[in-house]
Amino acid sequence: MKPKKVSESTTTMTEMVMPNDTNPLGNLMGGNLMRWMDVVGGICAGKHCEAHVVTASVDHVSFHKPIPLGEIVTLNAQVTRAFNTSVEIFVEVFATNIKGGNPRKCNHAYFTFVALDDETKKPVPVPPVIPLTNVEEQLFESAARRREVRLVLSGRMKPEQASEIRALFSTFQS
Amino acid sequence: MKPKKVSESTTTMTEMVMPNDTNPLGNLMGGNLMRWMDVVGGICAGKHCEAHVVTASVDHVSFHKPIPLGEIVTLNAQVTRAFNTSVEIFVEVFATNIKGGNPRKCNHAYFTFVALDDETKKPVPVPPVIPLTNVEEQLFESAARRREVRLVLSGRMKPEQASEIRALFSTFQS
Amino acid sequence: MKPKKVSESTTTMTEMVMPNDTNPLGNLMGGNLMRWMDVVGGICAGKHCEAHVVTASVDHVSFHKPIPLGEIVTLNAQVTRAFNTSVEIFVEVFATNIKGGNPRKCNHAYFTFVALDDETKKPVPVPPVIPLTNVEEQLFESAARRREVRLVLSGRMKPEQASEIRALFSTFQS
Amino acid sequence: MKPKKVSESTTTMTEMVMPNDTNPLGNLMGGNLMRWMDVVGGICAGKHCEAHVVTASVDHVSFHKPIPLGEIVTLNAQVTRAFNTSVEIFVEVFATNIKGGNPRKCNHAYFTFVALDDETKKPVPVPPVIPLTNVEEQLFESAARRREVRLVLSGRMKPEQASEIRALFSTFQS
Amino acid sequence: MKPKKVSESTTTMTEMVMPNDTNPLGNLMGGNLMRWMDVVGGICAGKHCEAHVVTASVDHVSFHKPIPLGEIVTLNAQVTRAFNTSVEIFVEVFATNIKGGNPRKCNHAYFTFVALDDETKKPVPVPPVIPLTNVEEQLFESAARRREVRLVLSGRMKPEQASEIRALFSTFQS
Amino acid sequence: MKPKKVSESTTTMTEMVMPNDTNPLGNLMGGNLMRWMDVVGGICAGKHCEAHVVTASVDHVSFHKPIPLGEIVTLNAQVTRAFNTSVEIFVEVFATNIKGGNPRKCNHAYFTFVALDDETKKPVPVPPVIPLTNVEEQLFESAARRREVRLVLSGRMKPEQASEIRALFSTFQS
Repeated sequence: MKPKKVSESTTTMTEMVMPNDTNPLGNLMGGNLMRWMDVVGGICAGKHCEAHVVTASVDHVSFHKPIPLGEIVTLNAQVTRAFNTSVEIFVEVFATNIKGGNPRKCNHAYFTFVALDDETKKPVPVPPVIPLTNVEEQLFESAARRREVRLVLSGRMKPEQASEIRALFSTFQS
Repeated sequence: MKPKKVSESTTTMTEMVMPNDTNPLGNLMGGNLMRWMDVVGGICAGKHCEAHVVTASVDHVSFHKPIPLGEIVTLNAQVTRAFNTSVEIFVEVFATNIKGGNPRKCNHAYFTFVALDDETKKPVPVPPVIPLTNVEEQLFESAARRREVRLVLSGRMKPEQASEIRALFSTFQS
Repeated sequence: MKPKKVSESTTTMTEMVMPNDTNPLGNLMGGNLMRWMDVVGGICAGKHCEAHVVTASVDHVSFHKPIPLGEIVTLNAQVTRAFNTSVEIFVEVFATNIKGGNPRKCNHAYFTFVALDDETKKPVPVPPVIPLTNVEEQLFESAARRREVRLVLSGRMKPEQASEIRALFSTFQS
Repeated sequence: MKPKKVSESTTTMTEMVMPNDTNPLGNLMGGNLMRWMDVVGGICAGKHCEAHVVTASVDHVSFHKPIPLGEIVTLNAQVTRAFNTSVEIFVEVFATNIKGGNPRKCNHAYFTFVALDDETKKPVPVPPVIPLTNVEEQLFESAARRREVRLVLSGRMKPEQASEIRALFSTFQS
Repeated sequence: MKPKKVSESTTTMTEMVMPNDTNPLGNLMGGNLMRWMDVVGGICAGKHCEAHVVTASVDHVSFHKPIPLGEIVTLNAQVTRAFNTSVEIFVEVFATNIKGGNPRKCNHAYFTFVALDDETKKPVPVPPVIPLTNVEEQLFESAARRREVRLVLSGRMKPEQASEIRALFSTFQS
Repeated sequence: MKPKKVSESTTTMTEMVMPNDTNPLGNLMGGNLMRWMDVVGGICAGKHCEAHVVTASVDHVSFHKPIPLGEIVTLNAQVTRAFNTSVEIFVEVFATNIKGGNPRKCNHAYFTFVALDDETKKPVPVPPVIPLTNVEEQLFESAARRREVRLVLSGRMKPEQASEIRALFSTFQS
């Protein structure tokens, strides 16, 4: 398959925090933010894969500062790397108040989406990713390590086979 | 007030057409698209004005090709010109299928938003717009004419005072 | 096709402004009102045309006084005139507080809907409108002028062919 | 308090059955219809009482023919009678297909709403109802009997005190 | 058909009262609670009947104490008895504040659901219910009386045929 | 603070997959499932902590088999362990079809919630957890390890300080 640039599928989503998105303290609920991250990630993955995609997994997500009712949330999604029939998508979340003030990064997460065939609904191969910028290159490289963690966590790889992680841990082991 | 560039408030919103957004034929309802256009326009206006804003009016909107369930809608909003306490926002709508294919412009509209003071809820002055590119310059110039049309349509200006429109019509009148 | 009276398709919709319909100032968002206007207009058009309909366009809409959370919004839709495969629908919006007090007209708009065949999804002819009351007669007559404006605005008619508008403008031109 | 006519608070609501209102068979869920009936009943009660109201009870509701996705539901609410601090509202539900065809009555129900003071949130007296037409008169009369049934069902009246019901049952008892 | 125990289909649903579920006084609207009761009742009925089900009727429902925004609502649904092609479901509603404090019973209702064949959409026989506990036994017994009331109320049984109700009323009649 | 048993805050939520919860393939979107998991987890945490809580983080979540439109999703949430001002909640997700058939575990996740003071919105201490059953004991023990992973992942603990993880890794290192 013809490799594609990261910029070809980069996706931006902007949302205003509406009353029903908030918890009783008047801030955006974590679960609603995850839903938005999943949607923008899925749109980005669909563009890169040129296929229907389904969410396979989400890595650890942290929530820091609260995002109050009426604030503006901007989500950027970009593909980091492709693995046979799946892609890893990096989603970053930013917020400002309604006047554009107090801009801040809220959090980020790595989603994995699997591409499906329209007819059979079976996984199909996806195009490789061409990383160009320094940041894209970095995300591409580290994707291999994150994938090993996922495989170990889901029991599909034995810890002793996880060479990337072992290298990482051995540096502080001895 | 310090003038601001158009690019400082440009806003992009991406939405997937969900089942509840569709009519019984399975396409995005016009009214839902208008709601999204109003939201993205309002966010853009809030950024430029650095204030709460409310929708004052929407110019004529046309709907052309249907946008089916599951397609991706991208809305771009940019300020064209400021008038005392209001701004005109230009919203363009594009769609692709879920694989990023069949990209097309769907429609566009001009919204007017009024900036309000936090305390008094009264209109407040807004920063002027600095148009830089050719397109921004063109939207800035034509905004005066669109404003006259609005004032005539809403009965706040007599047709014979609408010098911009008169000039336009006189060209094909004689 | 057998002509139909305006009253045969007149439609009334009542909504209470719920939290998620409001902006951060606690008032109904313009975009949500437009969505309701589109729905009631579409129901009215469907009744008159006895067919599925889709929104083709909305003329200029203004928003005046805010409608706060919890207030009652009543929308009336009536057909004004039929044009081959489309109808123009006039939608008026009224509001009261929850006790029925402070009744007021909020705004109005003219929507155009196209009737579609169930199978082919192609436009189909619609029944003519029989205007009976003075108001219905007035809306019927002025619909021709509004249609010309739409055709000029969408580039499907040259300004110099717009005889209705020219007549209007020539009165204040000389 | 000044008595009011039934027509002063009669309320009509029109809804289109949207995807999220349906069950997996593609028909309007009973629970969603009850929610709409409650809203239109509450608006009607608020108008008659000129006060905030809360739902106190709903009498037996039956659901007959299914109402499929995309159909148009019209709900009419009218006050039948006032009792100290509450009113009984009669809600009737009708449906047609999207073309206005197959008009039919779906069901009806009697709701009771209690009027509350803005400050204290305690029940406040409500204006008496003036029934004018035959149907209004009939609904007014039978409201007393329905109220007794409610009081017995909720344990606030002993069956032997329910004179209206006893009269009804004694006719077929002997 | 093989009879089933009540516990095999008992269903618990927990909801947090979100902004859009509330009325302008900030409490859960009666209509939204009815919608939740209908959903949990339908899920319970579907489990017992092992079939698609539709709501046939709801008996009298009362609403007592308000349930404010942010509180936790727990709904329990259990089958009481089966009648040919329908089941009666008993739904109880409890609330606590967000800290688990102020636990209280809010209300309850009896729903009737009809089981439908997947293909024909016609009613199909449902499995009998085996009541085991004292409470289940009581609900099973009283279901016959409630069914008579429903048949009389809906005009499908003449009052003089309602032997269960007659027995009840005769005790306080003489 | 008085320690509490796990069972005192265990929470069950049941949802039916509605049209708007699905992706264009007709299955529950991953993001919607995460939103439900967050809500049920938050309710459980609020009960245990007897305080308002906010989501601090979610550990890795995997999605396996699709959950189609109309299926029933049951979510169970239980507290595993308390850490000063936060609790870890274990959420398990199960699905069946609408007839109660094809029961299966879908996935699970560990959420961390922080308890906040009503007035200051600052973190407050939470009651310790008393694990009783074998499963509760196991979840309690392994919570310490999961917490170390979170602290390392979020950069608040150096890998060489993570004694629990080191022990784990050293077993397959040599």
